[in-house]
Amino acid sequence: MSEFEKSALNKVVRGPNRAVYSKADVYKIVDSHFLCHLAYVYEGTPIVIPTGYGRKGDVLYVHGSSKNRMLNYLLENESVSATITHMDGIVLAKSVFHHSFNYRSAVLFGKPRLVSNEAEKMDALKIITDNIIEGRWEEARYPNAKEMKATMVMAIDINDASAKIRAEGANDDIVDADLEVWTGVLPLTVTVGQPEPNHDCNPSVEIPNSVVDFNF
Amino acid sequence: MSEFEKSALNKVVRGPNRAVYSKADVYKIVDSHFLCHLAYVYEGTPIVIPTGYGRKGDVLYVHGSSKNRMLNYLLENESVSATITHMDGIVLAKSVFHHSFNYRSAVLFGKPRLVSNEAEKMDALKIITDNIIEGRWEEARYPNAKEMKATMVMAIDINDASAKIRAEGANDDIVDADLEVWTGVLPLTVTVGQPEPNHDCNPSVEIPNSVVDFNF
Repeated sequence: MSEFEKSALNKVVRGPNRAVYSKADVYKIVDSHFLCHLAYVYEGTPIVIPTGYGRKGDVLYVHGSSKNRMLNYLLENESVSATITHMDGIVLAKSVFHHSFNYRSAVLFGKPRLVSNEAEKMDALKIITDNIIEGRWEEARYPNAKEMKATMVMAIDINDASAKIRAEGANDDIVDADLEVWTGVLPLTVTVGQPEPNHDCNPSVEIPNSVVDFNF
Repeated sequence: MSEFEKSALNKVVRGPNRAVYSKADVYKIVDSHFLCHLAYVYEGTPIVIPTGYGRKGDVLYVHGSSKNRMLNYLLENESVSATITHMDGIVLAKSVFHHSFNYRSAVLFGKPRLVSNEAEKMDALKIITDNIIEGRWEEARYPNAKEMKATMVMAIDINDASAKIRAEGANDDIVDADLEVWTGVLPLTVTVGQPEPNHDCNPSVEIPNSVVDFNF
């Protein structure tokens, strides 16, 4: 399957010309971020929480404390979704109405599953860690038995997804052509600052490759 | 009310020492961003969608097309929430387990309301526009009757909120003190690039104050 099938769930209703269903394109958006937003319903109110993630094939992994309220609620759902959002810029048009954002946004749908197999769980933690900062897993101390027990890993077996991309200038109405208003895009990017060593970090320890090579 | 009351809904269960309930502190997080994530439940599946917003007092405004599926679903809820997330950095510890993020995150709860009063609706659009890019409202053409009709504005009357802030280095276990692993923070910030004029932007129109003064 190289294309996600359109269904009532994942079909992009507003702005369908910006819709993306190709698996490669959707996963490109997923793999170039590390923070997703998940929602669970608590006593009738949907609540959205940000969390880190990693992907392997058609599986998205997230983790948290074993007592994490959201994960425990999500695991009772038949279907959950995870949203990944890149905010790429503010689009300024002549009319307020045609102002917009440039963005890349993906929504992944699937059945949640508690990862109880220890090997998959350890692998999932590596995948999440290295998706956040590549190569970090091998630099740090692996989780021990106690830490593994305190950690819950949830897999979402992705069976549906869609994405939207907007990456262009302002599209004003022809009637506004003569208005003397500046139009264009104000690009926004996430940038990495200078690494800040911990107060108790031994100064003789070199900054590791994961940090030197980091890019978002 | 200068403090949001703790309830089962907004009480921070995990990492309560990072919890923030002061209204001023919560709104500081809200006012320094312009993108929130909202969730609605579509046939049993919670779906999260990013959208722009603006705040006035205890009201959060969002908008979309009149046909926007999410907004129409949300308006049927007794209670909705909006999440605002600033990702400030990646925290690298000696153990994988103590890796973390630095962040400022707020969740606002309230009853959703369709803004049908034209004056409040116009004011809400100004608030949203100027929260995204201050001063832009006065530079661009205001919405006309047709555009107002095509636009839906939803207010969330905020009656509950909480926030979490993490802004510190790694907190490793004492048993790991002698491990020769670099620890510290990799700071992440959203930065603004050079404004990109539209292909059809008259070159004699100067870059406006809203763009020159923009900061995130």
